[in-house]
Order: sequence, then structure tokens, then C-alpha cells
Amino acid sequence: MLVQKYKDMLGNKSVIRSLSEFATARGKEIGYENVFDYSLGNPSVPVPQEFTDVMIRLLQEKSSIELHGYSPTLGIPSVKEKIAASLERRFGVPYRAEHIFPTSGAAGAIAHAVRCVSEPGDEILTFAPYFPEYGPYINLTGAKLKVVPADTENFQINFEAFAEMLTEKVMAVLINTPNNPSGAVYSTETVQKLAEILEEKSAQYGHKIYLISDEPYREILFEGVDAPYVAKYYKDTLTCYSFSKSLSLPGGRIGYVAVNPACEEAATLVEMCGQISRGTGHNCPTSIMQLAVAETIGLTADLSVYERNMNILYKELTALGFTCTKPGGTFYIFPKALEEDAVSFCNKALKYDLILVPSDSFGCPGFFRMAYCIDTEKVERSIPALRKFVENEYR
Amino acid sequence: MLVQKYKDMLGNKSVIRSLSEFATARGKEIGYENVFDYSLGNPSVPVPQEFTDVMIRLLQEKSSIELHGYSPTLGIPSVKEKIAASLERRFGVPYRAEHIFPTSGAAGAIAHAVRCVSEPGDEILTFAPYFPEYGPYINLTGAKLKVVPADTENFQINFEAFAEMLTEKVMAVLINTPNNPSGAVYSTETVQKLAEILEEKSAQYGHKIYLISDEPYREILFEGVDAPYVAKYYKDTLTCYSFSKSLSLPGGRIGYVAVNPACEEAATLVEMCGQISRGTGHNCPTSIMQLAVAETIGLTADLSVYERNMNILYKELTALGFTCTKPGGTFYIFPKALEEDAVSFCNKALKYDLILVPSDSFGCPGFFRMAYCIDTEKVERSIPALRKFVENEYR
Repeated sequence: MLVQKYKDMLGNKSVIRSLSEFATARGKEIGYENVFDYSLGNPSVPVPQEFTDVMIRLLQEKSSIELHGYSPTLGIPSVKEKIAASLERRFGVPYRAEHIFPTSGAAGAIAHAVRCVSEPGDEILTFAPYFPEYGPYINLTGAKLKVVPADTENFQINFEAFAEMLTEKVMAVLINTPNNPSGAVYSTETVQKLAEILEEKSAQYGHKIYLISDEPYREILFEGVDAPYVAKYYKDTLTCYSFSKSLSLPGGRIGYVAVNPACEEAATLVEMCGQISRGTGHNCPTSIMQLAVAETIGLTADLSVYERNMNILYKELTALGFTCTKPGGTFYIFPKALEEDAVSFCNKALKYDLILVPSDSFGCPGFFRMAYCIDTEKVERSIPALRKFVENEYR
Repeated sequence: MLVQKYKDMLGNKSVIRSLSEFATARGKEIGYENVFDYSLGNPSVPVPQEFTDVMIRLLQEKSSIELHGYSPTLGIPSVKEKIAASLERRFGVPYRAEHIFPTSGAAGAIAHAVRCVSEPGDEILTFAPYFPEYGPYINLTGAKLKVVPADTENFQINFEAFAEMLTEKVMAVLINTPNNPSGAVYSTETVQKLAEILEEKSAQYGHKIYLISDEPYREILFEGVDAPYVAKYYKDTLTCYSFSKSLSLPGGRIGYVAVNPACEEAATLVEMCGQISRGTGHNCPTSIMQLAVAETIGLTADLSVYERNMNILYKELTALGFTCTKPGGTFYIFPKALEEDAVSFCNKALKYDLILVPSDSFGCPGFFRMAYCIDTEKVERSIPALRKFVENEYR
């Protein structure tokens, strides 16, 4: 018999995907260039040429066994070394190869991190607004995701609500900074305070509360933003990373878990990831992708378009009267809707060929997300539509 | 706190890996070319040049989004179509794209198949001798792997033992043909009889018993062997495939689940795989690998070396008095050891720089495995060592 819990998940189409399908269908009617599709968080800038050149060189020069042979369960040692060295150089945390576990993107990284530190029935906290896939990521392990209500003022942390929910059952806290969907970046003050509370509660409860820091947007940071490296502030941090956004490489399925070397059991945690992967069928990311990101470590796609788009949208949205926290990074902006029901708001926007995502599925009703990983030219062309929408519907 | 079940798995080094490490260390003393290392099932022939050419062409010609964008959760449609068409052409089973779920190799395929059809506490049967990783693959899902004792005569199926163990608790049967470690290929008669029993017991118990057919060695078949395509004989078959062996591409992490279109819930099963992948962090194999295997579908590496090596070894082993089923495929041979304790037998072989794997971890004591995915020249050089070993130790 088919397993009911997975069968039950079918047909629950994600709002984002439905909107994206609407955009595609509408594009067939009026030309996709005329649909202002802000629905999907797909990197729009190309992979850097240097990355492609490295891939081609690897294919031309490496032996078949080096390039396409089995990767060791814990990842290719030279790759792990390069990632560790890069993190140490950039953030001053003395990672070594033994602290790095290459994964199939951030989803794979979170899947391993969560299984290391939580058993079925344990709780994991995250903060609204949050990436909706955290639900299945966590709940399908048997642990329970609980969502701390948002700090809707600044999209930092609602510490009051957090303190209430941080019970003895909580084994890990999952954060995402820079944040999808808010675009907010946790300040040094926020991260310090979070770390203090985790330390205090770990001591009080007699068990470690791990911090799982999901950082796929780490390289998309805007001018002048205070963007602390989370693991520096809390020793029991498992950093989950993906090259999807920084290299525009989501289909590459390549990222890692980096366990803070200050964590007493850091190397053990990485070895446990190797065991976990036997049960999930993960068995390492593609060897050639491991080698290619290691060879180009530190390289990013041209990410400047995202800040340019953000500035255009932020200026226009605030001018139109939207309440909106200025994003510190990512390619998302998260303004307050002009009516209480964000779904109704976003439905009205469709008439103007504006595809906006209501915030309900991010656990923070009343807002909407715009993913501005699209051409600047299109962002500019969307402004008159945005104005018309607001003026016709809300003035 | 770290999860104990994964912590407990650490330090339990696999016998195969320990032997392979011994071989590497010994190689440093006497030159690796002088170590007759039959331990690891790593393809030894290179990836075909045509495959490399396709990868380079994809990198040069495809847009960044096509090549490195997100793959849909259920896999890239054109890739699924090509795989389905190839299976239909070769085996006459009318697969369509909707029946194919691309995975990270056979490990990923099994991880999904098992989760579709079994809940924690359910039993899954496999047949000795079996690939030892089936243990963690199955048991870490919460289901229980039970091993049916071997048919040590022909390495087909011990139907008597099977009938006894096929209780109401069994939700799936996992087979591997061509088989690692025995090299045996299930005959049409075997597969037909297996299918009959599964049909009968499914009806009797009032629930389907799925057949999970792990077929990474499908393309490594030797002359004149009766090698039925399993799914043709049983409608509730989930075929798990990997391109690791056929293209010498284990580091590519690319394979698929193909659900028999005759299974009433075939398309639902594939959609369930998409949901399962959200919990395991799987999220599709690398896009470029999906595209490359689809473009080269039907292509294999030059697999002829394996049959050549098998013939040399089979002739020599039987001449030396070993009891040995002639392999029908794979790159393994599985003779009976010359003493009851295969571990002791294989330890003695080390003195002759012969690295043989005792069969205990395959659930079938008293035999040993030789993985002859090595150069023919080395196989030939190993023969005098094999003779000397047998003569000195057992004559």
C-alpha cells in the first residue's frame, strides 16, 4: 500500500508555483515580456564564464576516475580543504576539511543538520517570515517545526515570542539570514542576543540547543549592511550553504554543512552526516560540481543587478505609500499589503499583470513578496503597472 | 544532543573499505601495480569520449538557465521522455515521462522507492548474497530489512526460505539482478516464479507487495545469458537504475526510479517521490547530468573488459578446484572459499597480495567476492599469485 502521508501531500500546490504557472499562461497570451513576474526566486544572472571555463577544463584535463569516480562519503578532501580555507580567510573561523560536509545544495545541508541533532518528536524553532519548504524539510524527519511570530517592524527577531517558545523540547533553532522572503539581514546585535539566549537555555535545560544557519543568500548583501557571520557568535552552529544563488547554479545541487570548529563534537557531526546520507540516498553531490566550485571558490556571478533592482523598487514602493523594510540582501522585498488580506491584494494585482506572492505561506499574513531576480529593464517597465494598480484599487 | 543511532554507526568500518585501505597501504610499499586488489566495485573503464563531448557541448551551447537552473521537482521533462522512450524501445514496456523519477544514482532511487511503499515497522525482504548497504538504506527509513538465505547452488532464489519469510508484514521485496556480489543473473524462470508468488501473496494478504528491482548492472551482461527485464513480469515493479556502471559515472550521481506503467498507481508513485525528496533534501540530480545522460541515452562505456576478465578468472578458479557459479553479468565473481571461514581464507590471501572480500557481510558466509573491474593485464598477472596461494595454503 502506498504510504498515506506522502499521498496526502499531493495536490497541495504551492501558492508560488500556482502563481508562476499563471504567469507562464498569461505570457502565452500577451508575451511573457509583458508579465511582471515577481513570483519565483530563480537567479536571473548567468553563471560566470570563468565557472563554465573551469568545468570545460576539468572535462578536458582530468582523468575519468578523478572526475567521475565515487566521491568519498564525506566529500572530496581537496574540495573540503578549499571550502574550509575560504571560510577561514573570509570570516576568521578556523574551519578545517574535517568540519565540512559537501551536500546537494542547502536543502541537502538542512536535511543532514536536522537529522544530526533532533529525533522524532523534538521541536525545531524558526522565525516568521520563513521559507515554506522548512515545513516538509523538518516535519518529514519526524521532528516538529514551530514558527515564532515575526518582528513585523524590522524583520529581526521577536525575542519575546521566542523566549516563550524556547522550551526544553527544542533541540535546534533554524535561522535564515539574509532572509527569504523579507530580505532582512540579522544585525550583530540580533545575532549576539540570540546566541546569549541559546547559551543560557542550553545550560538551563542541560542539553545543547544547536543553531542551524541557512545562508544561501550570504553573498547577496547590499551596501553598508551589518551582516555578521553567524557561527562566530555561537559555537554550536551548523552553517548550511548553497552555491545556488552566489554562482546562479541552483541546478548544480551543490552546497555544504560547515560545523563550527569551536563545537566540541564538530568532526563527529560531519561523520554523522556521512551515516545519515546512507539512509537518505544522498551519497555526496556530483563529483564534477564539487571540484568546480572548489576551483572557483570565492567567485560569484555578477550580483549587482539585485541591488540595482532593489533600489528602484524600494524607492517606488515607499513613494507609493507602502510600509516596507529596506532589504539588506537577497533578491526579495517584503512590503505590507494595502489591505489586510494579502491574498485578495495579490489577486487584484494580477489584473495589472503584476505577479506578487501573498505572505500567508511565509507564516506572516498581510505582506507580499516580490522576487526581483529579473532584468532591471523589466523592473522599470513594471513601475507604471504598479502605480496604476495602487491608484485604481486603493485611492 | 547528538542523535545516538547515527553516532553508534561511526567506527563500524566496512570490511570492503578496510581491505581497500590495506591495498592502498601495501601499494605504497611494493607499488600498487603489484597489489592484486579485487576489493572495490569501482568501474575501471573510462567514461566514453562521446559523453565528455556532450558535456562540453552543453556547457558551450546551452544558456545558463537551461543548464544550471532549477530542475522541476519531478525531473526535467525532456530527460524523462528520453529515458522512457529508451526503456520502451529496449524492453517493450510502454513507459512515459510520467513514470520516470530521476534520482541521485541507485541509492537515491532505492531511498525513494522504499519510502513510497513502506512505513516504519514494515518489513522488506531481500535475498542473500546482497549488497551490504541495503542494511542502512532500508533500516534508516524505519522499515526492517530481512534477508532470505541464499540459494548457494546457483545464486537464483531460495524459494522455500522465501515462502516462509513472506509474511503479511512484508510490503516490498528488493532484488538485485545482475547481482552484486554473486554475478548471477535471475533467469526468466526465476523471475516468473517470483512474480507468481508475489501476486498470490498480495491477493492473500489484501495488500500489494511491491517489487523493487535494483538494476545498476543491467548493461553488464555476458554472452548468451538469459536476462529478463524484471518489470515485464510483475506489474507492481519499481525499477531502480543508475548510470554509474554503464557509463562509468558513479561520481555523476545520476539514475532513476521507473515505475511500471501497468501499476495502477504508477504516476502517483512518481509524484510521491517528489514529496519524499522534500524530506530527504534530495531535490533532483544535477541538471547538467540529467541532460547529458538523456542526450547519450543507450551509450555505454566499453564494458567488454569485464567479460574478458571474468572468463580468465572463471577458467582459472575452476581449474584450481574452486566451486563457482559462472557470472552472467556485473564485474564480480563469487567462488566458495577453500575453508569454512571465508575471513580466515581471505586473510591468508593477503600474504600473496591478493585482496579478496570475505562473503560474511553479504549475508552468505563461506564465499568470497572478487571485483574484477581492473585491467586485464593485472588480472593475468594475478594468476600466478592465485596459484601459489592455493598450492601453499591448501594442498
